[in-house]
Amino acid sequence: MTASREPSPDRPAPLTIAEIAERAAVSISTVSKVVNGRAEVALDTRVAIEKIIEEHGYRRQRKRASRSAAIELVFHELEPASGYAMEIISGVEQVTRRHRLSLVLSQLQGRQVADPAWFEGLVHRCPSGVIAVFSGFTAAQTEHLRKREIPLVLVDPTGEPSHEVPSVGAGNWSGGLTATRHLLELGHRRIAIITGPSSLLSARARLDGYRAAMDQAGVPVDPGLVRGDSFVFEEGIEHALALLALPDPPTAIFGSNDGLAMGIYQAVARTGLRVPDDVSVIGFDDLTPSQWVSPPLTTVHQPLKDMGMAGASMAVSLANGESLPQNRLILSTELIVRGSTAPPARR
Amino acid sequence: MTASREPSPDRPAPLTIAEIAERAAVSISTVSKVVNGRAEVALDTRVAIEKIIEEHGYRRQRKRASRSAAIELVFHELEPASGYAMEIISGVEQVTRRHRLSLVLSQLQGRQVADPAWFEGLVHRCPSGVIAVFSGFTAAQTEHLRKREIPLVLVDPTGEPSHEVPSVGAGNWSGGLTATRHLLELGHRRIAIITGPSSLLSARARLDGYRAAMDQAGVPVDPGLVRGDSFVFEEGIEHALALLALPDPPTAIFGSNDGLAMGIYQAVARTGLRVPDDVSVIGFDDLTPSQWVSPPLTTVHQPLKDMGMAGASMAVSLANGESLPQNRLILSTELIVRGSTAPPARR
Repeated sequence: MTASREPSPDRPAPLTIAEIAERAAVSISTVSKVVNGRAEVALDTRVAIEKIIEEHGYRRQRKRASRSAAIELVFHELEPASGYAMEIISGVEQVTRRHRLSLVLSQLQGRQVADPAWFEGLVHRCPSGVIAVFSGFTAAQTEHLRKREIPLVLVDPTGEPSHEVPSVGAGNWSGGLTATRHLLELGHRRIAIITGPSSLLSARARLDGYRAAMDQAGVPVDPGLVRGDSFVFEEGIEHALALLALPDPPTAIFGSNDGLAMGIYQAVARTGLRVPDDVSVIGFDDLTPSQWVSPPLTTVHQPLKDMGMAGASMAVSLANGESLPQNRLILSTELIVRGSTAPPARR
Repeated sequence: MTASREPSPDRPAPLTIAEIAERAAVSISTVSKVVNGRAEVALDTRVAIEKIIEEHGYRRQRKRASRSAAIELVFHELEPASGYAMEIISGVEQVTRRHRLSLVLSQLQGRQVADPAWFEGLVHRCPSGVIAVFSGFTAAQTEHLRKREIPLVLVDPTGEPSHEVPSVGAGNWSGGLTATRHLLELGHRRIAIITGPSSLLSARARLDGYRAAMDQAGVPVDPGLVRGDSFVFEEGIEHALALLALPDPPTAIFGSNDGLAMGIYQAVARTGLRVPDDVSVIGFDDLTPSQWVSPPLTTVHQPLKDMGMAGASMAVSLANGESLPQNRLILSTELIVRGSTAPPARR
């Protein structure tokens, strides 16, 4: 019996770059380019090398040391108007500061998926972790990060995240339900909703929550009272004006985010009506300006700062090689009743 | 005559780390710690080494290569409420993205000056440039960055910046003047101002602009109409309530930022009055929520995004070894007339 060797024969050691190069019959520098995510390698060669790595594994030299002490926070876009991004940034920053990690900020200029040049730079910088907000990576990019052992966490994911990728979301469905119930309890029956982009999971969940509350209360949803497909203030004005011009207008309007709710305020004022005397308005997010308007906005608080903190904590744990107690975190939303909702006026 | 050597005898070559170590009679690693801004060197030794560097200069090995491809953006604090930081961030990000530089974000947790531990980390990361917003460094820290050839640019400086440090500011004085003139031209004479913190240059400049406009119009400033020492919304409510309770209340109130103006709106509503029918309100900043309130806020546009872009461009130029056409940039502010200002009601 020979002395046992680590690792055991049934789990062979992962290959070094030199060993991969030998098997693939290419230069070490070519393998290095592939594992470092650089572009200038022919597709066939790249595929062959990745197949070898897939089969045998790849033993990185000084792996931890090569990580930069940074967490990269990527937004779909940085939209100064809403305050949404800033809330998340301030949550993430609180965690990175505590762990003495740098916070690197990027945006995808409105694209929902990272473009290849930017992604290449990201991989090259080799951060300790990546947090993608309201945006994402292609399946291939996600897989590439996994192979490079760069932890990825999604915050407020736009779509149903793949079960393997950790994510932090908010209780959008229950928030939509609670907001609509609040209006129903006040006595409203003609309740309209201006929805966000149907491409976004969060917007769909809010709409579904609205429908569930209406169904539960036995109030049929009038399709004419469901409008919109964007989170933009100006669209809120436009759709609210259309709703208020109906022969049988709604007595309450649910704006699927605070920006839309602000647009509804404008439309109500332009129509010569008053919030909440003539029309109740409810929003979603609870960004600071919702306290600044008159009357202060009743809205659903979305814990964006906490979501940023939770996402960053998950990324840091993964960077430290720890496993997560749960891969998918849903932080609860909360109804904040202020001055924009009241019982409907008697007609 | 011997062949001329670079550099000439009257400008001796700066010393390498080894040469400095020899002169100071210390180890190379000690010198390395000092030039890399690390803490674990006795004060006497550090001073001795810095004196040698001061006299002879220091020749860094592969200097450019050791710089990280990042611009560090430092805020006094990240206050999600205002939108101020996000505007500047989005401007800086536009420039860093174009130059394929990372954007690293930090805050000083409300301190106006960087704390030593954070500063040490900054120097250690050796970024291509540093942009400090609404905050600053001690004279010693500024000098340390200069020695390490890390470019520093101040954006919206809190105090009068030292003439050597490049800075980008806004036309706060002329903005204050223009806002007040607008109210005077509408016929107002009882014009109040709620000012920002007296410790901030920007707030002082706005107040001085107000005084200049009043003086020019021959309207004496009633000291009872000048109140406040903060940029916080709640203070806007409080001071406006006090102003409106005066026996001879103002017919117009100038809030030195949009947050204060929003507070004035709340106070006017609580008093049962209306904007602009009973009280004209004007703000400063033109953050997005100023368009969301009813009536939309007349305010002075501060080009925060442009200031971020200008600051980042200056930092990038300096990082590339270029000199700046001007060390001090003032971007102009602009009056945006919306619905919150009108001639005073006849009494």
